[in-house]
Amino acid sequence: MPEPVYEVAALTGFAAALFRAAGLDAAKAGTVAELLVEADLMGHTTHGLALAAGYLGELASGAMTAEGEPETVADTGVVATWDGRRLPGVWLTAKAVDLCCARAKQHGIAAVAIRRSHHIACLAAFLPRATERGMVVQIFSSDPSAASVAPFGGTRAVFTPDPLAFGFPTDGDPVLIDTSASITTNGMSNRLLAEGRRFEHKWLLTADGEPTADPRVFTDDPPGTILPTGGLDHGHKGYGLALMIEALTQGLPGFGRADPPEGWGASVWVQVVDPERCAGLAAFIRQMAWTVAACRASPPRVAGEPVRLPGQAAMARRRRALVDGVRLYPGVMAALEREAERLGIMVPVGS
Amino acid sequence: MPEPVYEVAALTGFAAALFRAAGLDAAKAGTVAELLVEADLMGHTTHGLALAAGYLGELASGAMTAEGEPETVADTGVVATWDGRRLPGVWLTAKAVDLCCARAKQHGIAAVAIRRSHHIACLAAFLPRATERGMVVQIFSSDPSAASVAPFGGTRAVFTPDPLAFGFPTDGDPVLIDTSASITTNGMSNRLLAEGRRFEHKWLLTADGEPTADPRVFTDDPPGTILPTGGLDHGHKGYGLALMIEALTQGLPGFGRADPPEGWGASVWVQVVDPERCAGLAAFIRQMAWTVAACRASPPRVAGEPVRLPGQAAMARRRRALVDGVRLYPGVMAALEREAERLGIMVPVGS
Repeated sequence: MPEPVYEVAALTGFAAALFRAAGLDAAKAGTVAELLVEADLMGHTTHGLALAAGYLGELASGAMTAEGEPETVADTGVVATWDGRRLPGVWLTAKAVDLCCARAKQHGIAAVAIRRSHHIACLAAFLPRATERGMVVQIFSSDPSAASVAPFGGTRAVFTPDPLAFGFPTDGDPVLIDTSASITTNGMSNRLLAEGRRFEHKWLLTADGEPTADPRVFTDDPPGTILPTGGLDHGHKGYGLALMIEALTQGLPGFGRADPPEGWGASVWVQVVDPERCAGLAAFIRQMAWTVAACRASPPRVAGEPVRLPGQAAMARRRRALVDGVRLYPGVMAALEREAERLGIMVPVGS
Repeated sequence: MPEPVYEVAALTGFAAALFRAAGLDAAKAGTVAELLVEADLMGHTTHGLALAAGYLGELASGAMTAEGEPETVADTGVVATWDGRRLPGVWLTAKAVDLCCARAKQHGIAAVAIRRSHHIACLAAFLPRATERGMVVQIFSSDPSAASVAPFGGTRAVFTPDPLAFGFPTDGDPVLIDTSASITTNGMSNRLLAEGRRFEHKWLLTADGEPTADPRVFTDDPPGTILPTGGLDHGHKGYGLALMIEALTQGLPGFGRADPPEGWGASVWVQVVDPERCAGLAAFIRQMAWTVAACRASPPRVAGEPVRLPGQAAMARRRRALVDGVRLYPGVMAALEREAERLGIMVPVGS
């Protein structure tokens, strides 16, 4: 039996009510709920409401801080450094994007480095709130309390998958890039492991350094690792990106792998540039519209599979979901129903 | 017979004299010469003095502007946008790094977007001038007048290889990352093509979309392409990076592929962050020293091939060259000797 279809507003309201009941104020609960649902609408199903039960557990245990504001470690008026106090990372990151957009309007560029954030979920989901304002936005993230990716040539993990997201406006849909320094993610590895499945390709290494597609290597002792972007062939490229992302997300905010692990969380770098303060937004869009059109016009390698722009499928999926409703990944609503019962919240009715 | 060994100072002086004779003032000639030689010292032999004959040709034809300063298109005091007027890109980029370092000290972050620069050579060579000052530096570049990399899934080129360099200080040598959105470079493709050699792996596509290691595909009509980072397996990652780099280097300065090509050149994004204005340089170095040590300690996949840090081999090579002298790539000095004869400059004596 397929999963039921839910109205987007009903789902967001339900998730917000769960987070409210778990101790978040209305603003925090609303932002976290909205952006988790956004991830599902965009098709990033490992980083949407699939995370909500985990977040509720962290709020219940106190591992996610429910109340208050981030502490400002330093602030030049252009770059702010925050201690996130393990507040909800989705809310912190959205707040950082909003601050950067306002400051970039004034200075052309602005950034926020965040240490001790809780998990920030789907990076792509934050991008439209900047691109809709005509901004160019970059979000990098890592989790210093975990490691699943080895440096190129090594077999013991040092890095998290280290996602890198970048969004910019065009003459049509924005381009929303959500990639990483590693070939695949922890979220996908955990899902395949739970479902007894394998990756399509040998994107992992055993602890002995043998390529494999089997996520069971993460349960070995010592565990296997995820290969950096470029794999065995040119993984020095992903390794370089991982070092860059960890320097920005852990080095700059001054908390990371050199400190005792604090559990599931994130270190974040948010940066916004305002094209209007460079050569102008119109000039920016003129260039990128040309480039986007040239990508679409590149004859496909496989007949019938035209070149896509990053974010294009996600935005189309999102538009359909806003009209037709959204079907969650199997098991996600079942987990939330258990939380709803515990917290005394009404479950939305699907169709 | 192997190429002779030259003293570094003699080689730099020789190159500077050539550029002086070709019309650059002392400051521009000195900076271009020094940074091309730096690239050779670091082992980036396709992007060092191998480029000098080409630059001299461009100065002779007027395609590289010899005199004057870049034109300021916009400047917020934190982000400057320059029209490079096709001045020597190596000099322009060094100037941008210096300006960003000074401004980052004040604002925490600073950036320069440059349109219509001439070619900027080796990105890694610029990084130490920022990391030596305790700064975190990023340099991205593209050339809107050329295209050799197709979007993932396509077969007609839209992008240049789009290099991405990133440097940061540690407790020892700096980490100097010089990577790109594509698996290999135009420089390496041209070298192998000229030498009748092939790549080790199938890093290219024919115009029909077949993977190949043969650089002769670039002489086909229509030409083949270089695969994005990640290759056929996960090349959407390199494709995303290419879009990011072209948005920053062409979109922001407002000159790019939408304009008529102006010949060999570059579009550049330089960005510097001062860790001292975030959580402090000491906190930055504490984190990154830990991460660098953890990378070195990751047991190697292949016995006897320990994990290296990006820039480590280059810095060691550079130190040796400063003592023992440098051997240029075969053919490079022969080309410069022809230029020296034309310009009436003494050729250094190797040993």
